[in-house]
Amino acid sequence: MAEELEEQLYDKELLDELLEHHDIDQFREVFLALHIYEQGEYFTASDENKRSVIYQMLSPLEVAEFLEVTELENYDELFETMDAIYASQMLSEMSYDNAVDILNKLPKAKIASLLLMMDKEAAGEIKALLHYEEDTAGGLMTTEYISVSSLMTVNEAMLQLKEQAPSAETIYYIFVVNDRNQLAGVISLRDLIVAENDSYIEDVMNERVISVNVADDQEDVAMVVRDYDLLALPVVDYQNHLLGIITIDDIVDVIDEEASEDYSKLAGVSDIDSTDDSVFSTARKRLPWLAALTIMGMGTATILGSFQDTLEQVALLAAFIPIIGGMAGNSGTQSLAVVVRGISTGEIEGQSKFRLALREAGSGLLTGLCCAILLFIIICVVYKEPVLAGIVAFSLTIAMTVATLAGALVPIIMHRINIDPAVASGPFISTINDIISMLIYFGLATAFMSYLM
Amino acid sequence: MAEELEEQLYDKELLDELLEHHDIDQFREVFLALHIYEQGEYFTASDENKRSVIYQMLSPLEVAEFLEVTELENYDELFETMDAIYASQMLSEMSYDNAVDILNKLPKAKIASLLLMMDKEAAGEIKALLHYEEDTAGGLMTTEYISVSSLMTVNEAMLQLKEQAPSAETIYYIFVVNDRNQLAGVISLRDLIVAENDSYIEDVMNERVISVNVADDQEDVAMVVRDYDLLALPVVDYQNHLLGIITIDDIVDVIDEEASEDYSKLAGVSDIDSTDDSVFSTARKRLPWLAALTIMGMGTATILGSFQDTLEQVALLAAFIPIIGGMAGNSGTQSLAVVVRGISTGEIEGQSKFRLALREAGSGLLTGLCCAILLFIIICVVYKEPVLAGIVAFSLTIAMTVATLAGALVPIIMHRINIDPAVASGPFISTINDIISMLIYFGLATAFMSYLM
Repeated sequence: MAEELEEQLYDKELLDELLEHHDIDQFREVFLALHIYEQGEYFTASDENKRSVIYQMLSPLEVAEFLEVTELENYDELFETMDAIYASQMLSEMSYDNAVDILNKLPKAKIASLLLMMDKEAAGEIKALLHYEEDTAGGLMTTEYISVSSLMTVNEAMLQLKEQAPSAETIYYIFVVNDRNQLAGVISLRDLIVAENDSYIEDVMNERVISVNVADDQEDVAMVVRDYDLLALPVVDYQNHLLGIITIDDIVDVIDEEASEDYSKLAGVSDIDSTDDSVFSTARKRLPWLAALTIMGMGTATILGSFQDTLEQVALLAAFIPIIGGMAGNSGTQSLAVVVRGISTGEIEGQSKFRLALREAGSGLLTGLCCAILLFIIICVVYKEPVLAGIVAFSLTIAMTVATLAGALVPIIMHRINIDPAVASGPFISTINDIISMLIYFGLATAFMSYLM
Repeated sequence: MAEELEEQLYDKELLDELLEHHDIDQFREVFLALHIYEQGEYFTASDENKRSVIYQMLSPLEVAEFLEVTELENYDELFETMDAIYASQMLSEMSYDNAVDILNKLPKAKIASLLLMMDKEAAGEIKALLHYEEDTAGGLMTTEYISVSSLMTVNEAMLQLKEQAPSAETIYYIFVVNDRNQLAGVISLRDLIVAENDSYIEDVMNERVISVNVADDQEDVAMVVRDYDLLALPVVDYQNHLLGIITIDDIVDVIDEEASEDYSKLAGVSDIDSTDDSVFSTARKRLPWLAALTIMGMGTATILGSFQDTLEQVALLAAFIPIIGGMAGNSGTQSLAVVVRGISTGEIEGQSKFRLALREAGSGLLTGLCCAILLFIIICVVYKEPVLAGIVAFSLTIAMTVATLAGALVPIIMHRINIDPAVASGPFISTINDIISMLIYFGLATAFMSYLM
């Protein structure tokens, strides 16, 4: 549906044609009537030549408007084809937080030269924001918010709002500060509209304002916005001075990004947003990880190699290697996923983690037992080898129990020692579980060798 | 951080104490000063006895306010302890979309009896919304929006806004309809505030309003809201009549939910939000899936069993079963993840899918070759068996190529025939790839048997 909708809404061929004929008036009329998201889509799909014509036809402000909501693959390239003065004007027309996001993708020298050409005020605000880490509240916030003093009347606040509105990122929350610029409260535009004109802001504002610290991690910030259903969230320093605000559109992107990150890591892919890459760059991205797994896999091979005598005597043992290793991998990945996602959505709190690991192991034991009974029956029926069936079934039970425990404990321990638990990817856990389950299986088989022959 | 923040913000012990002493005035003062999210947190943590005291102390409206933003485990239980008249009053005080979400979780008979006791207007609106599928635009929308006629002046619209504001879900977008209630445009409160009082709405409104159809899937709706950075999105029927709106807070939940769904399926877990479950219910949820995989795994065992002669002659072959099967599983899961996520975020369009599958296979071939060379060298050095090393390396290359192709093609085909591609989970693909890779490996080994001995 979404795709159809986009196709209906803009006529790429017409724009291409107007661009080719340098028909400025017509191009501007058609292009500027589009939603900025569609303008961005058209721009993204254009090559360098088309883009340089677009710069001639549109003002820096007009380009800034759609670039703010567009994610480009390569910003370096963008600023190489764009005139430097044009570029710096364009950046100063953007919301500061978006300008900072773009600048953060450029080399240091380029940033400095662009800031030099920018107007003083914007350059100052942007420089201040550039200091914050990208994935913290400071990196997400903008300084373009509306704030009023708690001592103003509703009427005075309304006048200030109308004045500040053109440059504000949102006008739907008005933040209230005291005389030392400390966050004192918040009032929604909705409440401001229905309030009496001559009441004081401090009497109508909501004093229980939710805020985050400038150094807070973006994942925690996203949780606050989601849980409290906020459209904008104020950011303060350690002395509660109001520094900026974070708006919900940026939070939607953070949630998307964090979920994709967890997902990619579960699959052992470094960068999920890469469907446009070539074969070679895809292969190059995945190779380090796959090569590491190959070397880890040699560990499993070495263990099995050391049981060569056992294997030579009962070759049928080999037939059940994939099922035991695979089931340990599957149930370990299930535990891993539940724990990693639980940690990153904040569902799992401090004390319950150890209990969760035990629950996972318990569930591994129960499901392992059931699958083992199933397997025991099948092997007895098909191969008529009850001792072999018993060894396979027993190994499966232990392997699945250990695998679920490992799948849960590894991310919990990583989280405890401040490593992102999502780094413990599915393939990593599966390979670890391969090694453990083969030790169990062949250890048991070797011990009960005499009964097998 | 988020956890700390919540702890700072409300004093559970104090509330418990006030509740125990039936101190209505004090409890109301402390409780109602909390943010509704915290009120919900406190309510969720309370047992049935405490809850029944809470109902005595708070009005249905006050309970409705926090229940709207709270996700409970069990709504059935909630309505069993709550007086039926109180419950129906509470539901009619909620936003219609949230009331519908809650009712949808109850048995049919219970819904009917609650609707009967509700006030007529709310019951009518809620009944109409109950007809829509939960995961469509219709299921997400609410009818509490502000709409004005295109023929009104800005001043008239402002008056209408003030009148409708108390019951509206958002007042920041005002939707404009023509005389047949068809969606004609939109104007933001921001633009309305800065517009001249006596201009006509049709002259100041934005005619290029983005809307979705009532039957559209919630995943597509979420993409539109995210891409266009909207705070609210109008929902229309096939004749473009305005039916309701969807607000961004509901979209944040949808994005969260859909990402969790893809993630759980990749790991082969049916329900990721289950960290509170007991061992038994966790095991029961996962067992069907694990049992199915066990039976599929017997397929691999049967194939290996049929190569028993080969295995008996060269037992060392068995040592490389886990590494070949595992690497095929790993690279297949990578392809699966890229394609599934690409489809569900809308990044992959119609034509490029086949090319994407080829790219995945190409990347499988390249990475397979590199890992195979690595493995070849290791095996030659460690075991001094160049023929075995050659067979293992060659099998690995083919297995990884086929696995990536399968990992990409399975979800693409499922999407084509309208099955949710995420159903093709990681464990499923891994097991398929186990079978394929074992056929390749032992097929090759059997063919080159004479060189191995």
